[in-house]
Amino acid sequence: MTNSFSIAELTSMTGAKSVEGQNVGVITGVASLAEATSADLSFLGNPKYASEVSATKAGAVLVPMAYVGQPSSGQVFLRVENPSYALALLCSVLEARLWPRPAAGVHTSAVISSSAKVAPSAHVGPLCVIGDHAEVSAGAVIEARCYIGAQARIGADTWLKPGVSVGDYCQIGARCRIQSGAVIGSDGFGYEPINGEIQRIPQIGNVVLEDDVEVGANSTLDRARFSKTVVGRGTKIDNLVQIAHNVRIGRQCLITAQVGIAGSTTLGDHCVLGGQSGVAGHLTLGDRVKLGAQTGLFEDVPADGFMNGTPAAPFGLERRLVVLSRRLPELFKKVDSLAASLDSAKR
Amino acid sequence: MTNSFSIAELTSMTGAKSVEGQNVGVITGVASLAEATSADLSFLGNPKYASEVSATKAGAVLVPMAYVGQPSSGQVFLRVENPSYALALLCSVLEARLWPRPAAGVHTSAVISSSAKVAPSAHVGPLCVIGDHAEVSAGAVIEARCYIGAQARIGADTWLKPGVSVGDYCQIGARCRIQSGAVIGSDGFGYEPINGEIQRIPQIGNVVLEDDVEVGANSTLDRARFSKTVVGRGTKIDNLVQIAHNVRIGRQCLITAQVGIAGSTTLGDHCVLGGQSGVAGHLTLGDRVKLGAQTGLFEDVPADGFMNGTPAAPFGLERRLVVLSRRLPELFKKVDSLAASLDSAKR
Amino acid sequence: MTNSFSIAELTSMTGAKSVEGQNVGVITGVASLAEATSADLSFLGNPKYASEVSATKAGAVLVPMAYVGQPSSGQVFLRVENPSYALALLCSVLEARLWPRPAAGVHTSAVISSSAKVAPSAHVGPLCVIGDHAEVSAGAVIEARCYIGAQARIGADTWLKPGVSVGDYCQIGARCRIQSGAVIGSDGFGYEPINGEIQRIPQIGNVVLEDDVEVGANSTLDRARFSKTVVGRGTKIDNLVQIAHNVRIGRQCLITAQVGIAGSTTLGDHCVLGGQSGVAGHLTLGDRVKLGAQTGLFEDVPADGFMNGTPAAPFGLERRLVVLSRRLPELFKKVDSLAASLDSAKR
Repeated sequence: MTNSFSIAELTSMTGAKSVEGQNVGVITGVASLAEATSADLSFLGNPKYASEVSATKAGAVLVPMAYVGQPSSGQVFLRVENPSYALALLCSVLEARLWPRPAAGVHTSAVISSSAKVAPSAHVGPLCVIGDHAEVSAGAVIEARCYIGAQARIGADTWLKPGVSVGDYCQIGARCRIQSGAVIGSDGFGYEPINGEIQRIPQIGNVVLEDDVEVGANSTLDRARFSKTVVGRGTKIDNLVQIAHNVRIGRQCLITAQVGIAGSTTLGDHCVLGGQSGVAGHLTLGDRVKLGAQTGLFEDVPADGFMNGTPAAPFGLERRLVVLSRRLPELFKKVDSLAASLDSAKR
Repeated sequence: MTNSFSIAELTSMTGAKSVEGQNVGVITGVASLAEATSADLSFLGNPKYASEVSATKAGAVLVPMAYVGQPSSGQVFLRVENPSYALALLCSVLEARLWPRPAAGVHTSAVISSSAKVAPSAHVGPLCVIGDHAEVSAGAVIEARCYIGAQARIGADTWLKPGVSVGDYCQIGARCRIQSGAVIGSDGFGYEPINGEIQRIPQIGNVVLEDDVEVGANSTLDRARFSKTVVGRGTKIDNLVQIAHNVRIGRQCLITAQVGIAGSTTLGDHCVLGGQSGVAGHLTLGDRVKLGAQTGLFEDVPADGFMNGTPAAPFGLERRLVVLSRRLPELFKKVDSLAASLDSAKR
Repeated sequence: MTNSFSIAELTSMTGAKSVEGQNVGVITGVASLAEATSADLSFLGNPKYASEVSATKAGAVLVPMAYVGQPSSGQVFLRVENPSYALALLCSVLEARLWPRPAAGVHTSAVISSSAKVAPSAHVGPLCVIGDHAEVSAGAVIEARCYIGAQARIGADTWLKPGVSVGDYCQIGARCRIQSGAVIGSDGFGYEPINGEIQRIPQIGNVVLEDDVEVGANSTLDRARFSKTVVGRGTKIDNLVQIAHNVRIGRQCLITAQVGIAGSTTLGDHCVLGGQSGVAGHLTLGDRVKLGAQTGLFEDVPADGFMNGTPAAPFGLERRLVVLSRRLPELFKKVDSLAASLDSAKR
């Protein structure tokens, strides 16, 4: 980053409620509390790191309103409601400088079907392929080496990073962001054993991403067997996630890395699935369901359920079972001792 | 789908044994029982949904021979041996309309080595790269942005979706289907610690997919250290699966999403590996071995074995252990109570 | 492989300490003990296969110094310190023949920014895209269809296989190898709930791979929220691995397939993470920490720790818990029997 901000600029950009201490220099970078120098802005986003604030060399620190402490000499505290979000406001400015929106227009090396419709304000980068009757809406950014299949549709202001594949007939909403290598619209994994041979079931549906959906790098979303696989508005999907055919994910969910959701399962809104967790097929999860990391879920979960472990159990029970299972050596000994004691009592 | 079928056409296409009820309209779509309208065909493929048949608004329903019930007014039941497969027959017709085989020939933007052999009946899409001495057989479809390495071979009628990578020297059989982003022939992960530094072991083998193999999106199949990594005829691999170097998979196996198989392990025929399961290296699995989802297998399994859990145990035992482990709180209490009771008895 | 070696050549290439037996033919291939023919070299790399040596038909076998046994007729034993590494020396020669370094120069179909710097000795394959101010150093090989973003840097002699994506501003060291489909520099998965909506936190840092790092196929390494995500010198990462934003991995680590490391976690040097294991965010792992396959780690681990299971426990304890949990049926019975016995004793 070759940017430079005065404390006054930072105060304004982060919406700080109060400024404590004094720093006459400029801030040219962002760094963690442990790594920051006097030219860096840092922040206390996770209470785990609170003890690092007093030792940080950062020239400016975003701290939560309730933080007890004061800046060291030459250091400024900017008090904000949510340091993490305040930092995000600043980073948005930096991001816009680092990734200015590419100019409208289609790169000469892209291969665009004559029946495709690309909005004049959209950007299509080098070596992209856009299929027959596909549509790229106003303000969309399609970076290098993307594939957009026949009759697929990319919504307004959606941004595809380099190397994304959007399969034929799939629909991407507005303001979505899709990371490199993601595959939207691969065939669902559908087979039937017929006469001892595995026969493929055609997968003739599509994938629909509603507005404001984000998809991580190399994640895969399968097209429906028929009808559609759906990801609801505002849901964010991390890297290397597998979404099988006919899955329906609600709105504002967080699906973290390496999660797998099997076919025809339905998730409500505001669900949070921990890393590497897996959900079996044909299940229904209510709103706000949470799964811990590596959970293996094989049953329906009503709204607000929090499940953990494999096979998944309600969080409180699962935690208790883990604690008790660690005491198994003690339990085995105790039972042996009871048996011996009873034996001698009987004699 | 903009297709339209009469009931007579559906009866013929699905091979229905009997037709019950009457519907004078046409069917223009396929939908689940819960979502279907009177213009839709639906089906009872999973007994779990049997109760939805009587309430469905579908204009036609594929039901199994043994299904007890009758169509509502204006609705038709088509009785078939296997509704799921009957639907697949219909969907095959629809699929062929949605994805007509692309015309033979090589797109002008593709970069083809002068020593590569591409059959005149094959299709090679835009921005593909085909290396020296590679071979693309008759009827093969290589969609946009695929890479076919030096001396690699693609069998007859095999279909590569956009963005597949087939590494140098790898061999793909006939009638295979490979989804976007799959990598066939990445280097095996082979290293030796030599003098405190990790040294790479060259991986000079290849990958061989026999006929009728399917590989999911973004799955990775490593080339052998030497010799070959093999996937047997008719085996289907889902998305984001990792097949390590020198693995040998038998015929007609189903390897579901996010499975990992470590180096030099051998699978028999007709094995089924549940989602996110992992198999350690240098193991041997017999024919028809099954692993439950998220299983972690660290030992050989003879034919017909069904393993579950981490570390994997025979399915029946593992289920019993799960049930008993849920009763640990009760067991701890019981032992405490026994101890107290024995104590008081001794006094 | 169409190569041919005399026993004398093999002896020299593998640095064999002694040669036993006689074989007047030539060796033209490499194969496992079980599959080798008289024209093959084989090796005993894993003691598990020791019993196969006496039955192998290999014309030459690399055996460890301590191996007890002698060659059969027409067979040669080459005794070496480390058969696996000796084979690697030979395979390196074969590899260099199978994958000769491509000629220096940029393919005419590649799209290179006029502000990018490509060393004259580097190779850039067909249909690559290289962004503004990017730099490709001397001797680097960028195979077909790679993307190198704006201001990214590729170190000397680094080799990118076809279809790698290196995001804007990312830094790749010297002598790295990156397999097809890997994504270096996808956005970190950072969101904050603001007023009930999930807001994206800009990810403005980069990814730095130090020298001699290897990354497997379709693995994903997220750019830092700010600052950098770092992979230390000599560390090897397998396929389908997820490295989240701001992770710091030390030197000479082995990260096997399908591992996930959540945000801001730090690993020391020489760590080994087993397949499909997961590490939660904001943790610190010391040097030489080991995780078994499928481990789920939720706590810091000091140097030399070896953890296993989910949630992870020290290896010895975890093994003991597994053994005891398999004895739960017996324990439940024993407690029932004790209760009955105590009951009758009381009467």
